[in-house]
Amino acid sequence: VAMTCFHLATSRDEARNRLLTREKMMQVGGQLVLQEEEERANGRLRALKEAEMQEAKRTGVFPPSLHFFQAKDLMEKSAVFNILKKMPKGAALHVHDFGIASMDWLVKNATYRPHCYFCLTPKGAPQFKFASPPPPTPKQEECSEWVLLEKFRKGLPNVTEFDNSLLRTFTLMTENPQETYANQDMVWNKFKTIFFAISGLVNYAPVFRDYIFLGLEEFYRDQVLYLELRAMLYPVYELNGTVHGREWSVRTYEEAACLFAKTHPGFIGIKLIYSDNRSKDVSLIKKSVQTAMELRAKFPQMVAGFDLVGREDTGHPLYDYREALLIPASRGVKLPYFFHAGETDWQGTSADRNLLDALILNSTRIGHGFALSRHPAVWADAWRKDIPIEVCPISNQVLKLVSDLRNHPAAVLMATGYPMVISSDDPAAFGAKGLSYDFYEAFMGLGGLTADLRTLKQLAMNSIRYSALSETEKKVAMETWEERWQRFVAELARGPK
Amino acid sequence: VAMTCFHLATSRDEARNRLLTREKMMQVGGQLVLQEEEERANGRLRALKEAEMQEAKRTGVFPPSLHFFQAKDLMEKSAVFNILKKMPKGAALHVHDFGIASMDWLVKNATYRPHCYFCLTPKGAPQFKFASPPPPTPKQEECSEWVLLEKFRKGLPNVTEFDNSLLRTFTLMTENPQETYANQDMVWNKFKTIFFAISGLVNYAPVFRDYIFLGLEEFYRDQVLYLELRAMLYPVYELNGTVHGREWSVRTYEEAACLFAKTHPGFIGIKLIYSDNRSKDVSLIKKSVQTAMELRAKFPQMVAGFDLVGREDTGHPLYDYREALLIPASRGVKLPYFFHAGETDWQGTSADRNLLDALILNSTRIGHGFALSRHPAVWADAWRKDIPIEVCPISNQVLKLVSDLRNHPAAVLMATGYPMVISSDDPAAFGAKGLSYDFYEAFMGLGGLTADLRTLKQLAMNSIRYSALSETEKKVAMETWEERWQRFVAELARGPK
Ligand SMILES: [Zn+2]
Ligand SMILES: [Zn+2]
Repeated sequence: VAMTCFHLATSRDEARNRLLTREKMMQVGGQLVLQEEEERANGRLRALKEAEMQEAKRTGVFPPSLHFFQAKDLMEKSAVFNILKKMPKGAALHVHDFGIASMDWLVKNATYRPHCYFCLTPKGAPQFKFASPPPPTPKQEECSEWVLLEKFRKGLPNVTEFDNSLLRTFTLMTENPQETYANQDMVWNKFKTIFFAISGLVNYAPVFRDYIFLGLEEFYRDQVLYLELRAMLYPVYELNGTVHGREWSVRTYEEAACLFAKTHPGFIGIKLIYSDNRSKDVSLIKKSVQTAMELRAKFPQMVAGFDLVGREDTGHPLYDYREALLIPASRGVKLPYFFHAGETDWQGTSADRNLLDALILNSTRIGHGFALSRHPAVWADAWRKDIPIEVCPISNQVLKLVSDLRNHPAAVLMATGYPMVISSDDPAAFGAKGLSYDFYEAFMGLGGLTADLRTLKQLAMNSIRYSALSETEKKVAMETWEERWQRFVAELARGPK
Repeated sequence: VAMTCFHLATSRDEARNRLLTREKMMQVGGQLVLQEEEERANGRLRALKEAEMQEAKRTGVFPPSLHFFQAKDLMEKSAVFNILKKMPKGAALHVHDFGIASMDWLVKNATYRPHCYFCLTPKGAPQFKFASPPPPTPKQEECSEWVLLEKFRKGLPNVTEFDNSLLRTFTLMTENPQETYANQDMVWNKFKTIFFAISGLVNYAPVFRDYIFLGLEEFYRDQVLYLELRAMLYPVYELNGTVHGREWSVRTYEEAACLFAKTHPGFIGIKLIYSDNRSKDVSLIKKSVQTAMELRAKFPQMVAGFDLVGREDTGHPLYDYREALLIPASRGVKLPYFFHAGETDWQGTSADRNLLDALILNSTRIGHGFALSRHPAVWADAWRKDIPIEVCPISNQVLKLVSDLRNHPAAVLMATGYPMVISSDDPAAFGAKGLSYDFYEAFMGLGGLTADLRTLKQLAMNSIRYSALSETEKKVAMETWEERWQRFVAELARGPK
């Protein structure tokens, strides 16, 4: 009996280890075999991670389970976060045109430029305009009279206070997010107000150029070598009132990226995903699809495809637009789609079915895919088609889809090894920067204790693999990334100086 | 081209419908074929559900996304909730001995009985004792002097206020749960205090008997015909100080259930799952396993198996107890396990591995399994072994594992059709009653708009199928349930009078 007993115990332990190994192999990065130096780096990373999580368990204070606005300062003190900041993260595949550079710069730099006017809408939201001669007086129901900011600031007793108030209107940050934004409507309303407020600044040609450059700089400093920007390509204006069209904007993005690459070793570039808003009528979206095809034909290197942005719960479902979205295929034109889909908690609604239509419409990637794990058939088919999701944890938390990021539904997908990349959506509006904050949430929150250096490496490689770069471009990008990865690993393995 | 185009659109719509159907078929209950009357009832239910969800989307107020304490009143006004209250739910498979009957009764009835004394611990928690002659003075460091409640109440200017304060110490309910319980430690501390406080009441033999009866009554009124109670079987005492052992308690449970069945048509009975606390040393758990085997041998109809209860994050992982838990198998004795496992947000920790060990140890069911969807290998194997999880949404929310129940990780399992039952854990401590509140959360929150009458029917049938009843007992239970189900469906199909 003792022998049987022993045998039983052994086989149980074996079964247990097999299960543990299977799960380890399944998770994102689980198939990667690390080099010796990577193993040592992983050992150090794992030790730091475990210590942080043990401490969090003890104190009850764990950044991924707090609201980002309350977690940010804590995060910045974390050893793991500081490693993630140094980690070469590859590419940022889900970021929006005017959410990539610190809002602080808009206040401190853009609004301080000459000929900057502002007015207040009846709801008290600021609007900006650069003009010389001064702009014509707006309609009373739209905005107050234009006031020259330079002159206005001179009359203020406390300019810093005014500048801070501007900054507050440019981000969602607040000390009590739970109270300030009691529901999704409230946070989305403020979110839209931000982009409305800054539009007059960022669409002024000189600011537009500098904004792109600064955005690239912030991501580059955060170890991101390539970006794909969802861009609305709104008209950009000059001081004298001249207005530029979309092609001018695309060329300006291209020029800014080229200039940036010249002065920033290893930088690979940017591509644009032309985007329109899903609140628009079908007929307008038909035109936008047409525009997307034209832009892609004219700038095959720069325009990667098309997307529909804006709040899914209140916008048109993709299904409404199916006729428009099938135009390219019916004409034999390839227009890759990068649809936002499944950014909802309302399971079973028409917005929730966007995931299904993104799959049916052969979306190249899926933006967010927050609801994907609740759609097992779409999940399975999208996996078969190798359609990755772009997970943006902080965005999902700030926009009130989930509070404790350990419960982010993509945690399930991460555990199964579903193809994914981590991105930051509109970091500037959330008070974040680059990708590191979102990587921290994904690594510590979604991934749990089991996510390790393999996970991070896979996520970084995924960002190149699933990008819209050509095969040749990908090869170059991967080599550039690998070189930096080796350096990062060597430093991490060496330990603290 | 027009033909191709048309063909394309058709095949796309077909593919879309196939996907929708696949997901519909996959979800819990998706395989059920409804009778004509059920279809009509389902139509009405779906219409009411959709109206409620549309209204919630509009107002931003949706009970499953609110804390239960703030959602309860709203829920009670819901038409769907009132249908769920009438629905024959089958069995409650995950409830604890002293969490099943309203705490209100303990205050208003138990503490008003003669010879009821109370004292206050140094931390201010009340302790109770029935005794005649009066109980000996407690050690000073443990409790204040015993005070006769009858006498004490006579001296009070406001008895209602005192009674309400007692009630507050007996439940977790509070107006501001987010502030009162800032983290899991705080809510678990209070949770433990509750059971400590009521122990002197519920373990007094006359109260013990009545408590069981009342608990059954509350579940019966909520259309529950059978219960499996996790029971600690602590000593029960008489007024004269006599103390009863576990066997007396089992017999008393049996007698109470028999008496109850006689006066409550259709009531099937109860079984016990003897439970010990996972904070205890291995040697003590060895003894408990022994005790469980003995109890099951003596009361094969009453004692279904064994479980370990208490907070997983701070208790011993199952793996620590493996030697003790393998004793029955090594002796060729069958002792079914019903382990609480995966009641944690700390993915990858030793507590989180309880799920794995519950599987390895052939647990008959899994209590909570909150973390299961993050363990794809355990998930797959447990499914193959047909091990259901007992989902207790309100418990998980109140104990701060998840806030918005639409993000409950079992939503994923529900969408895939993983075997599960809905239960209420300790409804009395959460201010809930029976199973209806938890069914509402599961149906509206976890299930989303897609969950329908099929889902509910499957969940009810699962509760019988996965119970510890014998095959013969299950057949009887299923027939009793079906009869009631037909009546419920007929009424629902008929619509409002
Ligand atoms: Zn986005
Ligand atoms: Zn329990």
